[in-house]
Amino acid sequence: MSLKIALAQINFVVGNIAANVDNIIKAAVYARDQLKADIVVFPELTITGYPAEDLLLRADFITAANNAIYQLAEQVIDIALVVGFPEQGEGVLYNSAVVLHQGVTLACYRKQALPNYGVFDEQRYFTAGDKPCVFEFNGTFIGLTICEDVWKSGIIEANKNMGAELLLTLNASPFNSGKIHQREAVICQQVKDSALPLVYVNQVGGQDELIFDGASFVVDSLGQTVFRAEEFKEQISVIEFDGVNPVVSTCAPLYSQISSEYQALVLGIKDYVRKNGFQGALLGLSGGIDSALVLALAVDALGAEEVEVVLMPSQYTQDMSNEDAVLEADALGVKYHVIPIAPAVNAFTEMLAEVFEGMAKDTTEENIQARCRGVILMAMSNKKGKLLLTTGNKSEMSVGYATLYGDMAGGFAPIKDVPKLLVYELARYRNSLSVVIPERVITRPPSAELAPDQIDADSLPVYENLDPILERYVELDQSADEIIAAGFKSGDVIRAITLVDRNEYKRRQSPPGIKITSRAFGRDRRYPITSGYRGV
Amino acid sequence: MSLKIALAQINFVVGNIAANVDNIIKAAVYARDQLKADIVVFPELTITGYPAEDLLLRADFITAANNAIYQLAEQVIDIALVVGFPEQGEGVLYNSAVVLHQGVTLACYRKQALPNYGVFDEQRYFTAGDKPCVFEFNGTFIGLTICEDVWKSGIIEANKNMGAELLLTLNASPFNSGKIHQREAVICQQVKDSALPLVYVNQVGGQDELIFDGASFVVDSLGQTVFRAEEFKEQISVIEFDGVNPVVSTCAPLYSQISSEYQALVLGIKDYVRKNGFQGALLGLSGGIDSALVLALAVDALGAEEVEVVLMPSQYTQDMSNEDAVLEADALGVKYHVIPIAPAVNAFTEMLAEVFEGMAKDTTEENIQARCRGVILMAMSNKKGKLLLTTGNKSEMSVGYATLYGDMAGGFAPIKDVPKLLVYELARYRNSLSVVIPERVITRPPSAELAPDQIDADSLPVYENLDPILERYVELDQSADEIIAAGFKSGDVIRAITLVDRNEYKRRQSPPGIKITSRAFGRDRRYPITSGYRGV
Repeated sequence: MSLKIALAQINFVVGNIAANVDNIIKAAVYARDQLKADIVVFPELTITGYPAEDLLLRADFITAANNAIYQLAEQVIDIALVVGFPEQGEGVLYNSAVVLHQGVTLACYRKQALPNYGVFDEQRYFTAGDKPCVFEFNGTFIGLTICEDVWKSGIIEANKNMGAELLLTLNASPFNSGKIHQREAVICQQVKDSALPLVYVNQVGGQDELIFDGASFVVDSLGQTVFRAEEFKEQISVIEFDGVNPVVSTCAPLYSQISSEYQALVLGIKDYVRKNGFQGALLGLSGGIDSALVLALAVDALGAEEVEVVLMPSQYTQDMSNEDAVLEADALGVKYHVIPIAPAVNAFTEMLAEVFEGMAKDTTEENIQARCRGVILMAMSNKKGKLLLTTGNKSEMSVGYATLYGDMAGGFAPIKDVPKLLVYELARYRNSLSVVIPERVITRPPSAELAPDQIDADSLPVYENLDPILERYVELDQSADEIIAAGFKSGDVIRAITLVDRNEYKRRQSPPGIKITSRAFGRDRRYPITSGYRGV
Repeated sequence: MSLKIALAQINFVVGNIAANVDNIIKAAVYARDQLKADIVVFPELTITGYPAEDLLLRADFITAANNAIYQLAEQVIDIALVVGFPEQGEGVLYNSAVVLHQGVTLACYRKQALPNYGVFDEQRYFTAGDKPCVFEFNGTFIGLTICEDVWKSGIIEANKNMGAELLLTLNASPFNSGKIHQREAVICQQVKDSALPLVYVNQVGGQDELIFDGASFVVDSLGQTVFRAEEFKEQISVIEFDGVNPVVSTCAPLYSQISSEYQALVLGIKDYVRKNGFQGALLGLSGGIDSALVLALAVDALGAEEVEVVLMPSQYTQDMSNEDAVLEADALGVKYHVIPIAPAVNAFTEMLAEVFEGMAKDTTEENIQARCRGVILMAMSNKKGKLLLTTGNKSEMSVGYATLYGDMAGGFAPIKDVPKLLVYELARYRNSLSVVIPERVITRPPSAELAPDQIDADSLPVYENLDPILERYVELDQSADEIIAAGFKSGDVIRAITLVDRNEYKRRQSPPGIKITSRAFGRDRRYPITSGYRGV
């Protein structure tokens, strides 16, 4: 007996039920007519997109999502659709997967393992199901599972005990660096333990802070990956099963870590701009490494004609910064403007002279420069409908080495979760494809250029020390004692941790950025601003 | 048999374990020596403060909190302490209450009902306990419960079945308008059903977006409130029980709704400034009603000498606005500065002239004015270490009638959850205590004064229509159809809803504000920015 199962790795828009239904229908018809599939499997919560957050608390939204399932059942025949949706129960909501075939519901499964950690809040919305769901299709017994279910032990086994010969899994598994290896390793091991072949369909696309990386796959009963779809791209594929043995297919090769990080950032920018309807993007180009990388990412995401940059030199901007910024814009073919900030800075200095009389210069004056740039960029963004991208990296976001409403002004922060050392790696990686960032931008010491001869290392531990301390503190929740015991200088550790703790208020007002590490700022790390805890 | 139970309604600082332990010891000694209490009951998660958010994921923090309990047990004798703390279990965490007496633990209860809705994320951190806990003390059987437990049916009954004669409840129950009535009504009814007298101890104080309003109380076995502590104030009280019957005490009268709203806002400002170590507060005074109210609140919270204001007139500022602003500052005795914004606005206009050539004026030019004010205020805040308060209300935050990095710039947004019509009511209420806001500020039509003869009603439905629409949409999750069916004009409803949906990106970057309604923006309402759902 042969069974052809299609994996519909598609980019959905959160909340746009009508568009998502259209995409489901198109994909199902393609799978049926072109791929000759018997079943087509979609990602978790297909109908609403993931995560729909508090839209899920609205009765009208849930009604619309449930009605969409009835529509779908009638609109596509001669192929079975496995679709995720928020199922309205009696006063409760389930994260469900339904099998639609010839106008009727063959089966409906309610997700049992509801993640409520990290970026996930599923217990805010959903009630857990309490049993597996196995249905017969063309003589094969197929079990349904949803995402977290197959990371837990017990649920696959319960499917097997109910007679399942094959598992389908609907997923919305977000990307972080290295996740794809972890994901396949965990799930292949689960399959191996149970000897149940598994079809894993993941969503692809960017949604605010999250990237879904696709890379859907099929594991045979020995726990071997026999098929893998592309990362970061939409793809509808089909796998033939001979009985429950997948007929060997081809695996898309996995990208290198640096390449997948780069592509995640590109996809994140592209989807944020496209799904929110902006007329391209805009950024300030300083001649430094951060804005150089963001420019390259933006051009790779949107194309040169969709991106505009502004150089906003001050008296502290070195000539080489301006020269390099122009080289970057030219190398990528983007339009640039030059607007020196002196007139506005001078105006504010005079306006504040009386109030500030007798008070020493401090970071206030540096912030004024950064905020003048923020005003210019936001004015251009407002006037032209272009999304303003900020260029701050994760190291800066961690320690607050950034000006609120200054360089932090913007709608989206592409490299907010990229530590400084990784910024350099990504720049070198991009240059390995074609040189777009002058070498000197990569090798010169980083500087905010807000005061004479300023460099980052005046205020912060050098990044070679700072970044690993931050990873341990922010991502791994290690204590100061543990980090010092690992060999870092206690002065650096105390300084870094104190700055992280003190700058929660800035991060709370920062634009969303793309999660690429195991723990990003935003929904993933929820700290009080008001906090008396001092871990040092 | 007589039993004296003290209620320690105290203001804790999240994360400051050492300071919280000191406060617990002081309160316990006072309860023992001054009030002759046998038992002193503290609020939920006393040791860490509530909500400690992702601090609870840190092993060092949990260890410190658990060690604090051992310390406490040894440091206070001759009175039983009932203290809340995050109990480290085997690889899991419990939200627990422990009874310490003469150096030993008499009982330890693990919270069974973990709220994970609204502002609550307890299932992110805690595992639920699975049984009640009743202990004997001086011959009385006492049950322990924590907050959400006593809102659910079943848990009180289970305590009764285990022999409890009296219940103690540790709480961190946040304020919203009318909550105190709801809270007492629900709990008195539960007590009535079970005929178990109950001692309810609530935290008091501000923590970022939340206000805990105190108003701890005691209910007798008939379900009658026989004692109530003050709202919004620290208070350590004692209630004598004759057997399990409370000896009738006195109830602090409940404040009127408007008075409690006003006091919640005052406490919120005071605690945010105090707990975060600011040198007072600062705000821009426009002559409009919103900044007039925020000034009055700030002065009532901090005292006049701690507050500074800045008038920043433009060519569109009417004379009466400046006059009224000065009258407000004078009435409250605060220092004011006048810094006209024309020089900065003119500088930006010239700097952007070339880039904007041939493009029509639009809101960009209005935003530049607001952002120049933002730069001035932030410079003063940076230089003087004063917290910048924003003055936007909930109606504006809902529809995005505010400038990001302009009037939205600041560290704290006191009236962010106060709808415009309530702003007027609160202003009138404040004037009823002593006149600090000129009558004409209350009666003139509201205007942003960013363009000639501009009034809010040019861009928005009048607030008498807008506010109830927003309440239904934002707080009650009603659909457009439901709101229209309730009698609101469809044009107004569609306009309002579209603006709310479209402005999530602004709210995501707004400073935290004080929750006073049933659903505030912030942790309480989590929406995607990227969303294709159009409920209209």
